[in-house]
Amino acid sequence: MNRRRRIYEGNAKILYEGPEPGTLIQHFKDDASGENKRRNEVVDGKGVLNNRISEYIFNNLNAMGIPTHFIRTLNMREQLIREVEIIPLEVVVRNVAAGSLAKRLGIEEGTPLPRSIIEFYYKNNELGDPMVSEEHVTAFGWASPQEIDDIMSLAIRVNDFLSGLFLGVGIRLIDFRLECGRLYENEMMRIIIADEISPDSCRLWDLTSSEKFSKDASRENGRVLAGYQEVARRLGILNTNERIVSSGPTLVQ
Amino acid sequence: MNRRRRIYEGNAKILYEGPEPGTLIQHFKDDASGENKRRNEVVDGKGVLNNRISEYIFNNLNAMGIPTHFIRTLNMREQLIREVEIIPLEVVVRNVAAGSLAKRLGIEEGTPLPRSIIEFYYKNNELGDPMVSEEHVTAFGWASPQEIDDIMSLAIRVNDFLSGLFLGVGIRLIDFRLECGRLYENEMMRIIIADEISPDSCRLWDLTSSEKFSKDASRENGRVLAGYQEVARRLGILNTNERIVSSGPTLVQ
Repeated sequence: MNRRRRIYEGNAKILYEGPEPGTLIQHFKDDASGENKRRNEVVDGKGVLNNRISEYIFNNLNAMGIPTHFIRTLNMREQLIREVEIIPLEVVVRNVAAGSLAKRLGIEEGTPLPRSIIEFYYKNNELGDPMVSEEHVTAFGWASPQEIDDIMSLAIRVNDFLSGLFLGVGIRLIDFRLECGRLYENEMMRIIIADEISPDSCRLWDLTSSEKFSKDASRENGRVLAGYQEVARRLGILNTNERIVSSGPTLVQ
Repeated sequence: MNRRRRIYEGNAKILYEGPEPGTLIQHFKDDASGENKRRNEVVDGKGVLNNRISEYIFNNLNAMGIPTHFIRTLNMREQLIREVEIIPLEVVVRNVAAGSLAKRLGIEEGTPLPRSIIEFYYKNNELGDPMVSEEHVTAFGWASPQEIDDIMSLAIRVNDFLSGLFLGVGIRLIDFRLECGRLYENEMMRIIIADEISPDSCRLWDLTSSEKFSKDASRENGRVLAGYQEVARRLGILNTNERIVSSGPTLVQ
């Protein structure tokens, strides 16, 4: 397995060449991403949980006709995915003010927004993923106006589904981040959802206590993992007495 | 004159109640604005020059059917303007990478952009005028989608006119900032250009030497004023042997 060609390594994932053309293997690491990535933290077992949660969500999106790159899970840390041409944008959908929006616009964290807001960030680690508008996206050719429309439509559908899913298990979807890619198939191009959807890419707060279950949880190793486990448990994809142990990537009963 | 009711005081201008309903008096101060405003600098005579340059540009825009709030100049530092409901956005039109765009997106200053880019900044001094996208503008009700379209159309017209005007006098229009407002008249509402257009709100570089004539010029008092005077002189609104003296708001031959 170690001879596989590494296509890309990010903060939280590695992409390897897949077993057949047009496929890749997406490997979930334990390294912290998002707000925590500057601290180079590692949350043991996080990759295993994200693999499972993302699999669960992407399977459901695929079934609903919301196209994603996900094909199937290969093992505890790896998924088989379709190879797409990644659009260099982080698409953020926000329902409630938090994080950078709360800070930049002077709105108290936890304030519901007048309507869901879609933001674009240019994917560039060196520049710190700066926020951009549709004007920048189209002027620099990162996506066409039609592609932006397609991305926003997908983002709204995903937001509707995820909001419902999490509400059903007592969790408030504050915001989440998507990546999209171009899939070329049968001489057609279409935009599909790529990357992952997991507590690494969502802000998830308990509906009643506002306890944070996601990347913005208290940063002690144990607390972060407990939040991720709670999400998996509520979604019914981790048995009550099953847990991911912190000593390594082993899933034990 | 000092008993007039002060409606608003910004970094570079004061607005007073006007002589009849629906009008205001716009007074140009010498205080630095834009990039220099944190330093609380004063450039003696700047207000007089900005009043003249803005008058010249707004008169031409009005004549071309690009609606502005400008009615007429009252004296060396004051203009009579129409009262509008200001839209809380700074509209920035960029032709060449400079300033915050160059920094945020990692593009070398002076690089021509693939096309003109329109940006919106939420007017809020305390928050540092954060950049926002159309999504924020419409979600928070700062302007409607139709109003954004109207603003962008006006901004493109102004950019076309100003680019030509400055090119004609050997100056490259790098970028500029507009403010717009709602004018209610005859039971109709329309968007018009407000504020000012002057070296305080534009980046103007010499076409051949790239010398900076505007707010981004070298910050020594004399250098800034010299740049503003050069713009006025090239536009033919300051005689060759006329100059604004630094000792006060006096225009001398």
